[in-house]
Amino acid sequence: MNESLQITRISRDSVERFYESYYDSLDENRLSDWPPHFSEDCLYRVVSRENFERGLPLSTIVAESRNMLIDRVTGLTKTQVYAPRYYRRFPGPLRVQAESNALVSVQHNLLIIQTLIDKQSEIVMSGRCHDKIELEQGQLQLKVRVFVFDSEMIPNSLIYPV
Amino acid sequence: MNESLQITRISRDSVERFYESYYDSLDENRLSDWPPHFSEDCLYRVVSRENFERGLPLSTIVAESRNMLIDRVTGLTKTQVYAPRYYRRFPGPLRVQAESNALVSVQHNLLIIQTLIDKQSEIVMSGRCHDKIELEQGQLQLKVRVFVFDSEMIPNSLIYPV
Amino acid sequence: MNESLQITRISRDSVERFYESYYDSLDENRLSDWPPHFSEDCLYRVVSRENFERGLPLSTIVAESRNMLIDRVTGLTKTQVYAPRYYRRFPGPLRVQAESNALVSVQHNLLIIQTLIDKQSEIVMSGRCHDKIELEQGQLQLKVRVFVFDSEMIPNSLIYPV
Repeated sequence: MNESLQITRISRDSVERFYESYYDSLDENRLSDWPPHFSEDCLYRVVSRENFERGLPLSTIVAESRNMLIDRVTGLTKTQVYAPRYYRRFPGPLRVQAESNALVSVQHNLLIIQTLIDKQSEIVMSGRCHDKIELEQGQLQLKVRVFVFDSEMIPNSLIYPV
Repeated sequence: MNESLQITRISRDSVERFYESYYDSLDENRLSDWPPHFSEDCLYRVVSRENFERGLPLSTIVAESRNMLIDRVTGLTKTQVYAPRYYRRFPGPLRVQAESNALVSVQHNLLIIQTLIDKQSEIVMSGRCHDKIELEQGQLQLKVRVFVFDSEMIPNSLIYPV
Repeated sequence: MNESLQITRISRDSVERFYESYYDSLDENRLSDWPPHFSEDCLYRVVSRENFERGLPLSTIVAESRNMLIDRVTGLTKTQVYAPRYYRRFPGPLRVQAESNALVSVQHNLLIIQTLIDKQSEIVMSGRCHDKIELEQGQLQLKVRVFVFDSEMIPNSLIYPV
């Protein structure tokens, strides 16, 4: 077990507040609030567990900068291709491990629930996030966000931010 | 992000303990332990996301005092109209924001699972709680509890406390 | 509500880190890391809610020592009887209550999600853990782990550690 947070200036508390804000922007559909949670030169990646465990570079979705995430959001808000629905994210406990003075890795499970407005809610994805968060000018930012989902079946919902 | 808890006497820790007790009373079916978590002149409301976001006053369920909640519980324990089943609540991380010396707002996601005893467990509701908790005579109490569920479809289970 | 953690040397923080490690070993399928979380003379029990509430000794699965858990793991890794699938566990908030200087009880809800790699994720179990954790030679260990699941229907997945 890890008590190594002492070597970093990033507190567990601030990491928990960061994710509240992160997931809130997505759940409440305030998409333009989502990219500011990333650093400019971030890596955002959604990948199946099989590819991840084999170390394959293949990803379902990948973006290599905050600007690419901003583009995604612009695209999403312009095209509403599918039936009205809501996504809601249920993160599990955060496993925070210090990497340096200004960098922590944060792993946690994530369950994503989809509700079509006239249907019963259902699970669309179950998986684990492998994130790295850095402290930059007094603010936490995602340097790496990798979501590894358990299924091989790729749901349409993947075009939506995770 | 919010560090404003400093202006209130209510600690995050006590809020977390409060919800453990709250959800425990419901999950374990100790219904008479549920109303004491509310203040006498509370507002309890269950509303669909569409109505909530449009600011419509329409609610699926509403109660405007602790006594009304006590009445609900009495009604529920007398009538067991449907097949034997269990509900279990999975709250997401609590987003606590100070409003005053003795009042905090607490938002969090909530996933409600239903298990009919001879069937597989299933999701009955996914949504977000918009609560206000006050400190009154040394004790925390819900002044406002609003549960906004994502679907437009109203499940039978709604008659049961959330 | 419980503030009695003051009578024990076990901190809430260390209990949270313990469960991160516990659930991680199972979710990531590192089964040999699972038994070391138990004390040598532990009790591990999986039981339906009906039997549990009636106080019946009947369990679906029971093991009375760490060695029996090691045997289970050996059995599981040798026989891969069923279709490839992943399990992922979503624990609810931990309710920690001090029992003595070196013993706490920990109750929490648990949602277990199963993903067959070419299917949509689904709930296999919803229930509550009634655990006891002791501090032994500076390390936390499960002395008792009882998982009470809400359904009467026993899924195949029960042979897998919870």
